Amino acid sequence: MKFIKTPVKGMCDMLPADMRLREHVLSMIKKSYGEYGFMQIETPVVEHIENLTSKQGGDNEKLIFKVMKRGAELQRAIEKGEDYADNGLRYDLTLPLARYYACNKEKLPFPFKALQMGNVYRADNPQKGRFRQFTQCDIDILGDGSNLAEIELITATASMLTRIFAEIDITDFTIHINDRRILSAVALSAGFAEEDVGSVLISLDKFDKIGIEGIQKELLENGYDAQTVEKYLAVYRTVREGVTIEAFCAGIDEAFLPAQVKQNLSDIIGCVAPVLARGVKIVFAPTLVRGMGYYTGPIFEITMDGYNFSIAGGGRYDKMIGNFSGQDVPASGFSIGFERIVTILKDHMKDENRLPEGATAYLIGNRVPLARKAEVLETARRLREDGTVVTVMPMAKNMKHQIGLLEAEGYTRFEKIYE
Amino acid sequence: MKFIKTPVKGMCDMLPADMRLREHVLSMIKKSYGEYGFMQIETPVVEHIENLTSKQGGDNEKLIFKVMKRGAELQRAIEKGEDYADNGLRYDLTLPLARYYACNKEKLPFPFKALQMGNVYRADNPQKGRFRQFTQCDIDILGDGSNLAEIELITATASMLTRIFAEIDITDFTIHINDRRILSAVALSAGFAEEDVGSVLISLDKFDKIGIEGIQKELLENGYDAQTVEKYLAVYRTVREGVTIEAFCAGIDEAFLPAQVKQNLSDIIGCVAPVLARGVKIVFAPTLVRGMGYYTGPIFEITMDGYNFSIAGGGRYDKMIGNFSGQDVPASGFSIGFERIVTILKDHMKDENRLPEGATAYLIGNRVPLARKAEVLETARRLREDGTVVTVMPMAKNMKHQIGLLEAEGYTRFEKIYE
Repeated sequence: MKFIKTPVKGMCDMLPADMRLREHVLSMIKKSYGEYGFMQIETPVVEHIENLTSKQGGDNEKLIFKVMKRGAELQRAIEKGEDYADNGLRYDLTLPLARYYACNKEKLPFPFKALQMGNVYRADNPQKGRFRQFTQCDIDILGDGSNLAEIELITATASMLTRIFAEIDITDFTIHINDRRILSAVALSAGFAEEDVGSVLISLDKFDKIGIEGIQKELLENGYDAQTVEKYLAVYRTVREGVTIEAFCAGIDEAFLPAQVKQNLSDIIGCVAPVLARGVKIVFAPTLVRGMGYYTGPIFEITMDGYNFSIAGGGRYDKMIGNFSGQDVPASGFSIGFERIVTILKDHMKDENRLPEGATAYLIGNRVPLARKAEVLETARRLREDGTVVTVMPMAKNMKHQIGLLEAEGYTRFEKIYE
Repeated sequence: MKFIKTPVKGMCDMLPADMRLREHVLSMIKKSYGEYGFMQIETPVVEHIENLTSKQGGDNEKLIFKVMKRGAELQRAIEKGEDYADNGLRYDLTLPLARYYACNKEKLPFPFKALQMGNVYRADNPQKGRFRQFTQCDIDILGDGSNLAEIELITATASMLTRIFAEIDITDFTIHINDRRILSAVALSAGFAEEDVGSVLISLDKFDKIGIEGIQKELLENGYDAQTVEKYLAVYRTVREGVTIEAFCAGIDEAFLPAQVKQNLSDIIGCVAPVLARGVKIVFAPTLVRGMGYYTGPIFEITMDGYNFSIAGGGRYDKMIGNFSGQDVPASGFSIGFERIVTILKDHMKDENRLPEGATAYLIGNRVPLARKAEVLETARRLREDGTVVTVMPMAKNMKHQIGLLEAEGYTRFEKIYE
């Protein structure tokens, strides 16, 4: 019999210290979003293969772990040359959310504020810090077409991050916000055709990586007209941090950019800014694109000042649920980089993943009589009733090593009972 | 495009009220076992197909959801007529625990007290209350060959159940305990052959369902000698509740039952009984078998008085980890019927799955000016900081219906902001 001791490629076993940290972060996320009225829901990890391969999932559809048909159905599939899979593991939480909402919306408050935390699966090539099973954490507001959705998503997430990172003295965050319709308007205004906007934005998305010159090179290589490219990039070439929406959009034709889009964005900033904690700011970010093509309105990201990656990102996607279910539902969501948060906390922390103070281990020698054991158990019971972590276990032959491993988990009090 | 709104057959979408109850129960389980020194761990949902089909999983191996190979590997498997699957979804938490321990034991305290809570998958025929994805909750003590393991497992679980069920005024539980070696000894003593003991115990396990006469019929049908069967069943025919270990075992030949087995069991009862909460008792249960063939020592179950099913069950399985990993590790575990606990709480409860008291909804009319919205957000921020659940959302056209759905979740305060 072949027995494989390591976990499946790209997936992790969680040690007790990992779990304590993850559970701690999960519980803070639940508490924070709970106070903002987000309600936790859960969908099965296994999803219909038809839904997973409906072309809404982009490149993730190439990374599906497929689940095989069973019994007679598998036999028939093999004989008839049909697909062997009837199910697959979800690659994100958004597709299952669309299905969930289509299935359950009569029973849910409207607008519905959802919090999802769960594992997703991608048959990616595992790299450092990139796994084939990982935890996603999404909040979404379904059925709210107004900017109250963005205001709630952003203030809730900023508050959650502030609370979690206060523990390691990180207090400075920047919320970057833009609108897909402004991005489109700049491109259209420069002379790009409607159908080319998506491709142009894919290039602009690389602003931080390859700079204006890199984008120019790529757009020209993609065969776009040099004058159009120059006109387009001129807008971004001179842009400075802190530019206002009005100043940035001044040159854009109103035909491409209705005034209400600008007003909507500045209203969001106006409402969010005053309730942010000290150290957190919200800025208009004209070069923020966010990869996914399904966004239709405001898009946003949160970065930790001094780190060059985002820790949460999202946007409005008013068409996606309709594409899945056939019924349009306005929607806006925020995806939290749970694994990234855990990694940062782990790097910075001192004792956050150890057992609570006072954790006590009773080590019982093998000659201890029954009556003495019973006494220890009664003492342990009383301590536990007061909330102290107490373990009662046999004393090992190598007690020093045994105590060392217990200390590593956070046990600080050791009672050795010899007889 | 085909879009399927319902979840995959036999799996459930969790509504917010479901999730609140499940999260509440999970957090009480974590807290209770945490105080007893059990450490939460997690293994991937996806497991090597070789491990899942190693013949240790009994009938569950027939119910595996297999995960297909991908890309070139799948192609090769098809061409060569090899298995299409390289992975599968775990059908329990015990097999992954054995793999986990084999892989990580150097980093873990010894004995290691593990708490696992996670989903398992079985391609069973879905029935009422039986699902293809469901949550299991197991505690196990690995590396402790002494009865301190059973004492800790049982007292921790009794304490956890008492705490959870106190909320719905259920306080009376019975812990039933027996030992596989006593069960074997009775059978051997009656004259059954060593190799027949497993089969005889499968019949005895039906005691509560078919009674002594039913067992007799079955054993005779299975071809066992009538006199042996009669001698065997005579022991159980006269057994009464509350029988002591000594009295029950009096007729058993010492050659089949070493004195230390009886002493071990009575020591467990002696140590556990004094620390149990009022309403909870522990009794020797000579007809308790527990299905799984892998148990090697004490076995135990907890029932709620007045209900004819067990809510938790387990036992010692000293050989299983060795069968998997090639290295024997003494082990004893308890599996908690998480889904059953949730179902009972749901049936009995009043408000346990609603939002906490004071949950407040601000409903914002569509003419409300920005400055007024900002005021509401500031008020909401302050309330949230104090831990109150507050949602801010647009007022729906059908506000009565909107409020009704929010009330169903537990919102009690509604602030309507018109302008």
